[in-house]
Amino acid sequence: MTDVGAEHLSAASEQPRLFHVIDPRVFDRRLLDDLCELATRVRRIAKSREGALYLQNLLPTRRAMLYFTQPSTRTFLSFNNACHILGIRTSEIRDPSTSSEVKGESFEDSIRTFSSYVDVIIMRTREPGRAAVAARLMDSIPRPVPVINAGSGSDQHPTQALLDIYTLDRSFAERGGIDGKVIGMMGDLKRGRTVRSLSYLMKCYRDVRLVFIAPAPFAMQPDVKAHLAEHGIEFIETERLDDVLPELDALYVTRMQSEWDIAGESRSVDIRRFSVGPAQLARLKPDAIIMHPLPRGPEIDPAVDADHRAMYWRQERNGMWMRVAVLLTIFGLDQEVRAADFPADG
Amino acid sequence: MTDVGAEHLSAASEQPRLFHVIDPRVFDRRLLDDLCELATRVRRIAKSREGALYLQNLLPTRRAMLYFTQPSTRTFLSFNNACHILGIRTSEIRDPSTSSEVKGESFEDSIRTFSSYVDVIIMRTREPGRAAVAARLMDSIPRPVPVINAGSGSDQHPTQALLDIYTLDRSFAERGGIDGKVIGMMGDLKRGRTVRSLSYLMKCYRDVRLVFIAPAPFAMQPDVKAHLAEHGIEFIETERLDDVLPELDALYVTRMQSEWDIAGESRSVDIRRFSVGPAQLARLKPDAIIMHPLPRGPEIDPAVDADHRAMYWRQERNGMWMRVAVLLTIFGLDQEVRAADFPADG
Amino acid sequence: MTDVGAEHLSAASEQPRLFHVIDPRVFDRRLLDDLCELATRVRRIAKSREGALYLQNLLPTRRAMLYFTQPSTRTFLSFNNACHILGIRTSEIRDPSTSSEVKGESFEDSIRTFSSYVDVIIMRTREPGRAAVAARLMDSIPRPVPVINAGSGSDQHPTQALLDIYTLDRSFAERGGIDGKVIGMMGDLKRGRTVRSLSYLMKCYRDVRLVFIAPAPFAMQPDVKAHLAEHGIEFIETERLDDVLPELDALYVTRMQSEWDIAGESRSVDIRRFSVGPAQLARLKPDAIIMHPLPRGPEIDPAVDADHRAMYWRQERNGMWMRVAVLLTIFGLDQEVRAADFPADG
Repeated sequence: MTDVGAEHLSAASEQPRLFHVIDPRVFDRRLLDDLCELATRVRRIAKSREGALYLQNLLPTRRAMLYFTQPSTRTFLSFNNACHILGIRTSEIRDPSTSSEVKGESFEDSIRTFSSYVDVIIMRTREPGRAAVAARLMDSIPRPVPVINAGSGSDQHPTQALLDIYTLDRSFAERGGIDGKVIGMMGDLKRGRTVRSLSYLMKCYRDVRLVFIAPAPFAMQPDVKAHLAEHGIEFIETERLDDVLPELDALYVTRMQSEWDIAGESRSVDIRRFSVGPAQLARLKPDAIIMHPLPRGPEIDPAVDADHRAMYWRQERNGMWMRVAVLLTIFGLDQEVRAADFPADG
Repeated sequence: MTDVGAEHLSAASEQPRLFHVIDPRVFDRRLLDDLCELATRVRRIAKSREGALYLQNLLPTRRAMLYFTQPSTRTFLSFNNACHILGIRTSEIRDPSTSSEVKGESFEDSIRTFSSYVDVIIMRTREPGRAAVAARLMDSIPRPVPVINAGSGSDQHPTQALLDIYTLDRSFAERGGIDGKVIGMMGDLKRGRTVRSLSYLMKCYRDVRLVFIAPAPFAMQPDVKAHLAEHGIEFIETERLDDVLPELDALYVTRMQSEWDIAGESRSVDIRRFSVGPAQLARLKPDAIIMHPLPRGPEIDPAVDADHRAMYWRQERNGMWMRVAVLLTIFGLDQEVRAADFPADG
Repeated sequence: MTDVGAEHLSAASEQPRLFHVIDPRVFDRRLLDDLCELATRVRRIAKSREGALYLQNLLPTRRAMLYFTQPSTRTFLSFNNACHILGIRTSEIRDPSTSSEVKGESFEDSIRTFSSYVDVIIMRTREPGRAAVAARLMDSIPRPVPVINAGSGSDQHPTQALLDIYTLDRSFAERGGIDGKVIGMMGDLKRGRTVRSLSYLMKCYRDVRLVFIAPAPFAMQPDVKAHLAEHGIEFIETERLDDVLPELDALYVTRMQSEWDIAGESRSVDIRRFSVGPAQLARLKPDAIIMHPLPRGPEIDPAVDADHRAMYWRQERNGMWMRVAVLLTIFGLDQEVRAADFPADG
C-alpha cells in the first residue's frame, strides 16, 4: 500500500488533469472541489511517519526549477517545501541579477534551458504575463514541461487563489461550504492580486455575496466587477467596515500594495479605517473567519492572532498543502493518492 | 537493524531532551558528555555506506529552514550538510536583502511563517537576542517548532561551544578528558563569542585552569570573569604568550573581530604578539593542541597546519558531527542511534 | 538488479578512473569514448521510473559543494541536476559577495573548509587557474576530495568540452563517429573557452579537419594552432562563412564574449557575417549539425531552432548527462552502471 510500484504509477500518470497552471479563471467547480479534497487527504496522510514516507516516495526522481526573479519568501518556501514533501528535488534562482535579461539571454531561451534540466518550472516575475509566455513556449517545443505561475506582476496568482478557496472551503466544511456565504474583501482591492483572483473564482459557487471594503482610490477594478455582473454574483462596495462587519462570514483583509505606488499614493489612506483589532472582533460573528494573504502590515493587530476566528496562519499552511495537491495533479498522481489506503483521521 | 520502523521511531521520539538550542550556559555535564559520545558514534557509523544509509533514513520526512541573515559560509555549510547526513531537506534564506525588515514584515511574523513550512528553524542574525525571541514566540503558538541559534550578534553561539567542547573532549580522550587541563584562549577575547561561550561551559568540568592572552583593550569581559569567579574556576590574564605557552594543554586562538570595530580599534593591535607560527610550536607541549574557530587571519601561520597538534581543521569537521548529534537529540532519536547495532570501529 | 548492495559498491569504487577534473587536454580517446558511452547508458536508464530510481540510489549518501563565484545559470543548473539524478545532496555558494576574499579568508582555507563537509567540490571562478590550485591543495591534505573545474576565467572548461565531444559523437554515431569530419568553429574564437578546449581534444580523433571562421581580431590563438600543428591536425582560417559552409559536417557557433572586453572591441564586429539564419541553412549539408554552447546572442536566429540540424538544445541537455557520467566515474561507479541489467532501448 505504501509501496508505489512503477507500473501502477505509469498507469496512473497517463492522463494528468492539469498541465500548466497559469490563470485561475479557467478553474471549474469540479477541479476546485477535487483539489481541496486532495489537499485535505495529503495533509492527513502526512501526519504519520508512515504517511510522510509514502508521500516522499511518490516523486523522488522528479526535479523542479523555482525561478523567482521577483523575490517572495513565503511563496518560495511554500512551493519548495511542497516539493520536498513529495520527494521532488529543487533548484532555484531567486536573485534578480541572475535573470536572463542581465546575461543578455532572451527570456524564452532561459525558460527553454530550465526545461532541459527539470520536470516542472515554478516561476514568479515582477513583469506581468511572463508565465503565460513560458507556457506557450513549452507548447511549441518537442520536450515541454509544465509551468506553474507563482505570481506575474499584478496579474493572476493561481495557487494563492486555490489556497484561499481551500481555506474558505475547509472553514465552512460543517456549514455547507462556500455556497451562500457573505465574503468581505478589504484594503487595497485595486492592486491586490489575491482578491482579484478570488473574486473571479466566485462564479464557481452558488449565492455568494461579496462586500468590497476599500478606500475609493483603491476600489476593486472594473474588469472584476464586470465579470461578477456577468455571472450574476451580488456585490456591494463601501468605505465603512463598521456598516457591514456583522453580516460577514469571512473577512479577507489585505495590505496596501505600496511597492506598486508611483507617487506614494498609499500614504494618503488612513489604514486604521480598514483594519481589524479587538474592537472589530467584538462585532464579528462568532463563526466568521478572518483571512489575510500575508505578509501583513498594520491592518491586522497581532492581538487578533489568538482569536479562534483568525485563520491567516492556517491559511498560510494550507498553501503548502494545496501546492502539494497541484503538483500531484500535474504529475498524474491525484487518483493514486486518493486511492491510497491510509486512515482518514483528523 | 538499519531498518527504522515507524513504531520504533515514534516510541523513541516521545521525549526529546532538547527543544530550542539558544544559550549554551544552560548545558550541563551530562548533556555535554552525551552529545560528545553521540557525535563520535555518528561519525563512526557514517564511515561505511551501510551506516551512511542508516543515518540518511532517520529523518527523511523532516524539513529545516536555514535563516542566515548574517552570512556565514562555514556555519551554514556545516548545518546544511548535517541536515543532509540525516536526510533532512533544507530551505535557505542567506541574503540579508530578503530579511523581513526589508519587506516590511515583522521579525515575529517571518519566524512564524517559517514554522508553517518546516520542522526546525536554524537561524543566524547580526542583531543579538533574535534566536531567543524566536524561541519565545514558538512557545506561545499552537504549532511550535524548535529554534537553533546559529549565532546572534555578539551573543552566545551554542553549537560552536559544543563543537569546541567536543574537540577538547576528543583530543584529551586518552588523558582523562577536559578535567584538570590548562586551556589558553588568545586574541580578541572581548568580542569573540566562541571564547565567551566556551568559558561559561568550563563550570561543567573539574579543575580546569584558563589563561586569557589578549591585548588589554580586547581582554575578556567582566561578566565572564565574574561567572568564573562565582564557580571557583581559576584564570589568569596576560598579554605575553611566551610566558604561558609551555604550560598549556590547549591553545584556542581567535582572530581580531574587526567587523565589530567602531573606529578601527583592531588596527592598533600588533597581531604578531598574539599569533602562532613555527617559533611557538617549538615551545608548545608535544601533546598540546591548537584550536581556532576559523576563518583565520594572520594569527595562525599556514605552516602550522602540517603539525600534528594543529586541530582546527578537525575541529571544523567536528562541528558538522556535533550538529548531527544536536539534531538527533532535538528530534528524539539520540537513544535510537546509541542503540543501533553498528561496529564501534575507529 | 536495481538494488545496489553495499559490498558491490565498495568493490566497484576501489579504483576510480578520474579524481580531479581540471584540464581537458589530458583526456585520451579511451576515456572520451567511455564517458560518451556511459552518458548514453545513463540517459537511457533514466527514461523509466525504475531506471531513474536506480540512478537516484547510487550516491544518496554523497554531498557536493557547488562553488560558483562567477555566476553561471546553465552550468550551475546542469551540475545541480546531474547531482540530483544520482541522489547527491548539494550545497551552493553562488553570490560573489560570499566568496572568501570578501570575508578575509584565503582561497585555500575556503576550499579546505568545503572539503570538510562534502565529497566533491564543483567550482567556477572568474579568475583563471583557481580550480588547479584547489586540486593541488587537496593533493596535499590528509582528507582530499575531488575538484571539478566548471570554468576558471578564460581557461579550460573540461565538462563543456566533454559535452561538446558527446554531442558530436552522438550526432555522428551512424556515420563513423567524429573521425574524418569537417568541423567549423565560428565567432569569438580568441576568448571562447569552449572552442579552445574542443580544439585541443581533436588530437584524440583521426583525420578531423577544422575550419576557424572569425573576425581577424578574434581569431583562434597561437597556442591552440601550435598544438594542432604539433599533432598534425589540419585547419584553415577564414573570415568568410559562405566560402566554407557547404563543406562542414558540424558548425560550432559562439557568441562574442563581450564580458571580457577592455575597450568595447566586440562592438567593432559585424556579427551578421558570423551568424546562422535561414539563408545559411539552405547551403548547409542535409546531415550537418549546428552547435552552440549557449547562451546565444544574435548569431543564431531563433528561426533556426525548428530545423532538424539545430543541435544546441540537445547539446545543452547532453551536458547534464555527461556530468552524470563524470560524477559516476569519479565515484568509481562507472563499471557498476555499465553492468546494470536495464534494457538498452532508445
